[in-house]
Amino acid sequence: MSAADLMAVLLAKSLRYDWADPHHANNDRLVFSKGHACPVLYAMYKAAGAIDDKELLSLRKFDSRLQGHPNPHVLPYVDVATGSLGQGLPIGVGMAINGKFLDKLPYHVWVVLGDSEVAEGSIWEAFDKASYYKLHNLTAILDMNRLGQRGETDLGWNSAAYAARARAFGWHVIELDGHDLPAIDRAYAEAQQQKDKPTCLIAKTLKGSGVSFIADKDGWHGKALSADQAKQAIAELGGERHIVVKTPTPDRRAPEAKATAALLKLPSYALGGKEATRKAYGDALTAIGAARPDVVAIDAEVSNSTHADEFKKAHPDRFFEMFIAEQQLLGAAVGMGVLGKCAFASTFAAFFTRAYDQIRMAAISGATIRLSGSHAGCSIGEDGPSQMALEDLAMMRAVHESTVLYPCDANQTAALVEQMANLSGISYLRTTREKTPTIYGPGEKFPVGGARVVKRSDKDRAAVIAAGITVHEALKAYENLKAEGIAIRIIDAYSIKPIDATTLSETAKAVGGKLVTVEDHWPEGGLGDAVLAALATRPLDGLRVVKLAVRDMPGSGTPTELLHAAGIDGEQIVQAVRSLL
Amino acid sequence: MSAADLMAVLLAKSLRYDWADPHHANNDRLVFSKGHACPVLYAMYKAAGAIDDKELLSLRKFDSRLQGHPNPHVLPYVDVATGSLGQGLPIGVGMAINGKFLDKLPYHVWVVLGDSEVAEGSIWEAFDKASYYKLHNLTAILDMNRLGQRGETDLGWNSAAYAARARAFGWHVIELDGHDLPAIDRAYAEAQQQKDKPTCLIAKTLKGSGVSFIADKDGWHGKALSADQAKQAIAELGGERHIVVKTPTPDRRAPEAKATAALLKLPSYALGGKEATRKAYGDALTAIGAARPDVVAIDAEVSNSTHADEFKKAHPDRFFEMFIAEQQLLGAAVGMGVLGKCAFASTFAAFFTRAYDQIRMAAISGATIRLSGSHAGCSIGEDGPSQMALEDLAMMRAVHESTVLYPCDANQTAALVEQMANLSGISYLRTTREKTPTIYGPGEKFPVGGARVVKRSDKDRAAVIAAGITVHEALKAYENLKAEGIAIRIIDAYSIKPIDATTLSETAKAVGGKLVTVEDHWPEGGLGDAVLAALATRPLDGLRVVKLAVRDMPGSGTPTELLHAAGIDGEQIVQAVRSLL
Repeated sequence: MSAADLMAVLLAKSLRYDWADPHHANNDRLVFSKGHACPVLYAMYKAAGAIDDKELLSLRKFDSRLQGHPNPHVLPYVDVATGSLGQGLPIGVGMAINGKFLDKLPYHVWVVLGDSEVAEGSIWEAFDKASYYKLHNLTAILDMNRLGQRGETDLGWNSAAYAARARAFGWHVIELDGHDLPAIDRAYAEAQQQKDKPTCLIAKTLKGSGVSFIADKDGWHGKALSADQAKQAIAELGGERHIVVKTPTPDRRAPEAKATAALLKLPSYALGGKEATRKAYGDALTAIGAARPDVVAIDAEVSNSTHADEFKKAHPDRFFEMFIAEQQLLGAAVGMGVLGKCAFASTFAAFFTRAYDQIRMAAISGATIRLSGSHAGCSIGEDGPSQMALEDLAMMRAVHESTVLYPCDANQTAALVEQMANLSGISYLRTTREKTPTIYGPGEKFPVGGARVVKRSDKDRAAVIAAGITVHEALKAYENLKAEGIAIRIIDAYSIKPIDATTLSETAKAVGGKLVTVEDHWPEGGLGDAVLAALATRPLDGLRVVKLAVRDMPGSGTPTELLHAAGIDGEQIVQAVRSLL
Repeated sequence: MSAADLMAVLLAKSLRYDWADPHHANNDRLVFSKGHACPVLYAMYKAAGAIDDKELLSLRKFDSRLQGHPNPHVLPYVDVATGSLGQGLPIGVGMAINGKFLDKLPYHVWVVLGDSEVAEGSIWEAFDKASYYKLHNLTAILDMNRLGQRGETDLGWNSAAYAARARAFGWHVIELDGHDLPAIDRAYAEAQQQKDKPTCLIAKTLKGSGVSFIADKDGWHGKALSADQAKQAIAELGGERHIVVKTPTPDRRAPEAKATAALLKLPSYALGGKEATRKAYGDALTAIGAARPDVVAIDAEVSNSTHADEFKKAHPDRFFEMFIAEQQLLGAAVGMGVLGKCAFASTFAAFFTRAYDQIRMAAISGATIRLSGSHAGCSIGEDGPSQMALEDLAMMRAVHESTVLYPCDANQTAALVEQMANLSGISYLRTTREKTPTIYGPGEKFPVGGARVVKRSDKDRAAVIAAGITVHEALKAYENLKAEGIAIRIIDAYSIKPIDATTLSETAKAVGGKLVTVEDHWPEGGLGDAVLAALATRPLDGLRVVKLAVRDMPGSGTPTELLHAAGIDGEQIVQAVRSLL
């Protein structure tokens, strides 16, 4: 109710939106960053004729499209799921970058912000990037209703404080009474006329506006009215009405014509050479970018480490720097992704933990984004544990319908990045800092969901299941055991999710159930647990699995020292195999 | 080198620190939020006589205490690990709150910030809370050296822009030349004289200051000098010297005397009644707070949902509101935790994903903090998937040396919260929104690392392993199957990590290996995977595990509807058991 007047004017006068074609490229976008305010959003749909009264009254009921927070899984007028606060504005930044720099369309992005959520740091990452990219096509509507879930916000109705912050972050600011319809109208018009700055409307509002016994009263957050209270509220609001609003429609312009796609020419690496998989990521992404004009790369100030800078050099107009702001990195990826871009976002694997909430929410949105995390595991060496992703596989596996890939050499990386460009949902590539031997030839196939049997014989007495850096340690163990006359099978489980249960099961049977899993990751939720979960679906008597993983906190050192200290190098794989024989 | 002059003055004039007693309660705290600048930090230790030349030259070597980023695991002069940027200031806020409101000691908290990391939203969460709590005892030293890892920062040397932002967030701001020693001295003195505002020094500096061929040049981040370059650099810096600095020492004051601890009287709930575990969390925390004056509670604007508000009502002077800023929530917990407080931080379980990086880093710090996440799983009902934690168990299990607890009733919750107060490291409690039946009597024991056999007989043909909300679904399945003459065993695995491998293994043996795991969580990394991993350490032929978990994206609905839709209710547990028989 605090935002109702703001939304009424927006719907009737400023929002350019074709309700019959909600995904039209030149529609304005409306993001309810304060997702819990969705009743007013759904009421807008009703007023616009997009839904009927019956559906409106299905709010929060099982199987309703009108969930407790907006969800594009079921509702075509919503672009992104919200409900975890502070995420709508960073996504709006991604959408506005898309309009200004990629599609070059005049659509406007409107983001409705709650005042409570302005406490989220992600909001300020977005404020910073929006002014850096001079997003004149972005307007934040701050519904300053003073009351949060459990009391007053930290700034209350201190409009001047919000205004000073927004101005200091480079925005055009308009302070207004959020229930003064002409003032709202003027403010939207002023926002639409900006040429090089995003606009923040700071609208002083009353929570529960229009109903005497609720307005500006604490203790009503998320509470329903009794039947009598509802009756009185409706009467105070002017009685039941059926307002139909005609929204302005956008010009039916298409995105700027794209360069003709070239034939994809993936990079290739000589068998027996050495290259870092992170470098192969950058090379492959650059090649895919040449073949597909919809590919976009974004990075969080480490493009010279993730090698996204290779893409930047080749396609500078499709690379966007998010500086050290991983939440905004995800926001930009989601915002571009839901508007049809094939977005790849990269940073150190460890730092995707900073944006886990955004990744989780992207899955709820049904967004398609691609993440590349470099510098995984203790094998990074001297920089120490703060830079070592040791939980990323667990984190990314536990994302709905995610794909988790972990290549061990450069050619395999290129093949996987190519497939990522065509996957749906959240896909994640884990890359390694150090150069690793190129053990696969150029052009070999590595289907997502598969696994590669790297070494096999009819005399294999055990199998080692590895991925990424540990494949090379497993191969050292293979050679050492072979010298002693002990044959083992080596499986490269490059597709951690979905994992190749068939190959794992066949392997387990072939070696009498004796398996070693080895990963540069904590013991929980990574490769070992993925293997156990897959094998649990195909039970095998006699199964004996030794799980090697990082169990103590690593320090600094060389990669060799740290792999050994963690108990996951070739020597320790040999010991683990021996313990099974 | 950009921060060297700033640190030289701090060490010689302003920092009050007893190097012989680094954990003295009244020492100033120095947090290197830009952890990669640790060579200057270690050089300070050398100058203060805390370490010698030999150790200084062990930088980044295996087994050295001088890791690539500062780490209190090995180094007593460091309070918290840094290296994931933007985390030092939120921790500094926690330390300053501790000094101002809890210990009531005059120590000062100095945080060295990089300019690149000011792009992190977590920094602005800290700026906001520091002024809200009027932390006059906190100074941020912004080393504005203009150059990030891969080029210029987004604001470069725009000191005025940083100043405007810091002022808009309520800080006292001093702009200065970071190589002007008298100006630095004056700025520190001015910061120490503040009465109700934190101070931000914006120090314009040169990266590589003092060496002609490096100073203010791009492309040197993280690069080592050649031997010749090093020789020239040392010459330009004035040659090799052995400067010994005497740091001012603090008054040897102890924290304010605490109220005498009372005898702990945990809340109790009548067997057969109903209560939400989140409410029991609030009740138990309040009771523990009465017994222990070192207990502190913090929350992120949802204390009326997490029930931390019970503690707030009873102990208002030990409750701190962080508003909707989960990264700052963790920062405050860590800052208070490393200074000896027994800190409990609460929010919705889903929103701890917002602070996963902070949780990961807290484990690297070896910090002891306690987290309580409410509203876990699809059983929350109408609010929809954005509010449902379905990945929190995976996330929290994959934290080094973490403890993960998930009670199913109120008395069990109280017993677990009591133990959390005495645990080391990161502990996590998962609570449920809905009221659940009280199935255990007051005062029963639930040791961390244990499991409870809820139902057993000599004729059990299968076992169901559940935790939290699904224990009650398992009990429904038990009754239904019992009515058909089928006996099953029910295990309440309330300690997800460490999990009770002994009980699980004995159970599996007793029921011929037929197990059903059931969890209100995605299939990856939660209870089911924890059970499989535990059983893999004690292999059993004939093991057959059916894993029930949430596999499709939930929507809104009643808890009953959603548990059924997810395939994890009593009826579906019955089916899973039947499939095994």
